[in-house]
Amino acid sequence: MFEVVRQRATLDKKIYKALEPELRTRLFEAQRQAQEAGIPLVILICGVQSSGRGELLALLNQWMDARLLSTHTFFPVTDEMAARPPFWRYWRSLPAAGRTAVLFGGWYDQPMQEYVQGKIDEDAYVRKLHRRIRFERTLADNGTLVLKFWLHLDRATQDRRLKDLRKNPRPGRKLGEDEIRMGKRYEQVLEAAMLAIRLTDRDTAPWVLVDAYDWRHRNRFVSDVLVHALQGAMDRRAQLSAQGTSSAAVLGEQPRAMSVLDSIDLTLALEKKSYNQQLDSLQHRLTELSWKAWRKGISTVLVFEGWDAAGKGGAIRRVCAGMDPRLYQLIGVAAPTDEEKAHHYLWRFWRHVPRAGFATIYDRSWYGRVLVERVEGFATEVEWRRAYAEINDFEEQLTENGILLLKFWMHISDDEQLRRFEERQQTPHKQHKITDEDWRNRERRAEYRAAVDDMVTYTSTDIAPWTLVSAEDKRHGRIQVLRQVVEQLEARLER
Amino acid sequence: MFEVVRQRATLDKKIYKALEPELRTRLFEAQRQAQEAGIPLVILICGVQSSGRGELLALLNQWMDARLLSTHTFFPVTDEMAARPPFWRYWRSLPAAGRTAVLFGGWYDQPMQEYVQGKIDEDAYVRKLHRRIRFERTLADNGTLVLKFWLHLDRATQDRRLKDLRKNPRPGRKLGEDEIRMGKRYEQVLEAAMLAIRLTDRDTAPWVLVDAYDWRHRNRFVSDVLVHALQGAMDRRAQLSAQGTSSAAVLGEQPRAMSVLDSIDLTLALEKKSYNQQLDSLQHRLTELSWKAWRKGISTVLVFEGWDAAGKGGAIRRVCAGMDPRLYQLIGVAAPTDEEKAHHYLWRFWRHVPRAGFATIYDRSWYGRVLVERVEGFATEVEWRRAYAEINDFEEQLTENGILLLKFWMHISDDEQLRRFEERQQTPHKQHKITDEDWRNRERRAEYRAAVDDMVTYTSTDIAPWTLVSAEDKRHGRIQVLRQVVEQLEARLER
Repeated sequence: MFEVVRQRATLDKKIYKALEPELRTRLFEAQRQAQEAGIPLVILICGVQSSGRGELLALLNQWMDARLLSTHTFFPVTDEMAARPPFWRYWRSLPAAGRTAVLFGGWYDQPMQEYVQGKIDEDAYVRKLHRRIRFERTLADNGTLVLKFWLHLDRATQDRRLKDLRKNPRPGRKLGEDEIRMGKRYEQVLEAAMLAIRLTDRDTAPWVLVDAYDWRHRNRFVSDVLVHALQGAMDRRAQLSAQGTSSAAVLGEQPRAMSVLDSIDLTLALEKKSYNQQLDSLQHRLTELSWKAWRKGISTVLVFEGWDAAGKGGAIRRVCAGMDPRLYQLIGVAAPTDEEKAHHYLWRFWRHVPRAGFATIYDRSWYGRVLVERVEGFATEVEWRRAYAEINDFEEQLTENGILLLKFWMHISDDEQLRRFEERQQTPHKQHKITDEDWRNRERRAEYRAAVDDMVTYTSTDIAPWTLVSAEDKRHGRIQVLRQVVEQLEARLER
Repeated sequence: MFEVVRQRATLDKKIYKALEPELRTRLFEAQRQAQEAGIPLVILICGVQSSGRGELLALLNQWMDARLLSTHTFFPVTDEMAARPPFWRYWRSLPAAGRTAVLFGGWYDQPMQEYVQGKIDEDAYVRKLHRRIRFERTLADNGTLVLKFWLHLDRATQDRRLKDLRKNPRPGRKLGEDEIRMGKRYEQVLEAAMLAIRLTDRDTAPWVLVDAYDWRHRNRFVSDVLVHALQGAMDRRAQLSAQGTSSAAVLGEQPRAMSVLDSIDLTLALEKKSYNQQLDSLQHRLTELSWKAWRKGISTVLVFEGWDAAGKGGAIRRVCAGMDPRLYQLIGVAAPTDEEKAHHYLWRFWRHVPRAGFATIYDRSWYGRVLVERVEGFATEVEWRRAYAEINDFEEQLTENGILLLKFWMHISDDEQLRRFEERQQTPHKQHKITDEDWRNRERRAEYRAAVDDMVTYTSTDIAPWTLVSAEDKRHGRIQVLRQVVEQLEARLER
């Protein structure tokens, strides 16, 4: 989930300085138009300690029209608030038509803190999150645009900033007890955030994850997202005023400075000898483990996605070779059948969920919805945005049922893909593997990268993380996959 | 919630016989058109024991086109099901575009039984219900029409039927252990159902409550609802195919044989002397109790709705007279201000939620959304249907916060209303109380009755039941209100 935003993206000082006037003007202008269109905008600023939430709040107050904007914090809890139901304070903060409300911590800070500090258990936390889903649905049904920002920092950077702050306290910026406590519990905060984002990232009120390492990057990113969303909301408003808003469907493509794919080390490679040894040993272990899983009734679901020619098929064959064919089924996802087309897109995948003790391997999967269907326009933005929540719901049900779910993205560079395509064209028995469509997809590589970034951001969760496979070297890719399967299955069986 | 459907509505044998061919034809025809339109229809049949769920299932198989219909039961849990996540069985049962699936017990039987039998606690039950909300949202987003029927029987009738069944077991109709257990726990089943219906009655998949006392009435009622919903879905489909379905917005007005208002005994009356004594004593108690509530920080919210001239104002004045003016505020709901109009309709009511220890009395309330706004067409069907869930969410938050919430519907007969209107017109100091609008509303009495029935059905909940006040005699009405306030407040303070 945080893979894409922990990359420490930066924006050059000079470029920022040159860009700033334009960014401000565009944001100001978009807000003014939204006012005329009567769209109420709610911005939630959440994130880890020291990620600059306060600075962002200040920035929005500077850059946006302050007459149309109100800022709300919910701490300390005043007598007025304490004496009423918790949501009274949030209702009070809601903007009228055409106005903007910026909410520090929004309606997430409180339940998150209670959960991290152990005051409520997971069931109670989830129940509170569901109340938020219902609340946001109510707002969206009423045409309110709700955008939730999560400002992310890696732990080392956070620690450094907190240390600086203790040494050189800024005026008015003394850390409160709660803040110190939350700062110390970085991992728990992230876990709580992951659960909250997974459950509450709905098309009614999407989360936008922000790499907050560099403030210039952050400012540009957030203002770009806001401008895009406001414009999108106005376009949609024109079409379906009575239908309420899908806040997510106006987000468009997020202006990422870096892709999570850039973080994959493609130089990793394996010698043939070492490869053969490892392959042999891993497949051996897998055979034993898969029978043990069968005896224990533990199921496995493997999902393979990746670039064309990245070696999905090869990796899958190496995994299958380690398992008894009676224990798994391989589902190659081609175009849907007539029957499948007549159902919800998830229906065809539910069909093949393995029974206890067995495995299903999906060669391409439900992620087609947010990859090819998104990029090719087979699914509308409303549809593929909604799919992240649908997929997370689906995967939650698999893992809650004790199924081991592993997802692989096979990654190769642009050059390597070209090399493999050409090789396929020149090798008679491989020619069937390369089609015009593959070449067309190649041209859309940038769009696919954006789709992969969003996919990893929204669906690499605590319950079902993605494994990004370095497959530039085929041998390395295959061993990385096999090792992950073996180790995760082993861990699962020991649990 | 079950007020409207526990009235033992019946349909005359001869009338039913005359109607039957037409009912069948209309249902068959509606289903066939839905097939052409490609609408998938899911019908859930739930209800208390012996309410005739099986018979209804059989009926739908007879009356509808069996080639387009499939029936699903989820008991006993087969090996196939048990070996997979619980929802696998539900996904498997979903109909393709244009087809109908009838699900016995749907996805509600299982969690309800687990909860009633104490296998899961309320938090876990609520969590399961939320999964169902998300699932139904997914189906609705995909254009599936989901209708959930709850067949209701009063306890005495159920007991009698179960006894008959034990004495004269029908072939293949032996009661299972679970069934016997559930039959014995009538109150718990109702409590579980009320919670489920309150949380999951969303516009994506509405509940329809059925008075199942008389099978002829039941058959006509259910088939009428189905025909209406299918036609509505086709009409809407034409307008917004890409937007998914609001299953609720196609329900229209339900063909109720009786109104819950018919069950109110309007002959109740009080002598002046007794009235004065009771009034005095109740107001006295209220004074003490309201100060005690203030010391304990317990808030009260009173909601008054009712027919024009039913005596809301008079009743409110008698309640207020028993409280220190510093302890309550009275909110008369007139047309919304500009500021209020620029917000969600609930915003104006959230504003006035009392702080701990105080009371707010709403003279007309958020129920305007499902009463006047529905009848006068100020809110679309999508909007007022959605409002039941929004209102239940709101009231849940009030009561969870420890607020005592009491809701009164002041009822008088048509004749009595006419008498009071005329009296007002003839009495100089009362003339301002009667307007042309009042006369117009009178003409729409039948529509208001239907709106009141739905309001009571969907919002008279475990946490905030409606009190239906017999106000034909003004004195009786006032004392009934005052007594309810005093007794409930007393009970609340002792808790």
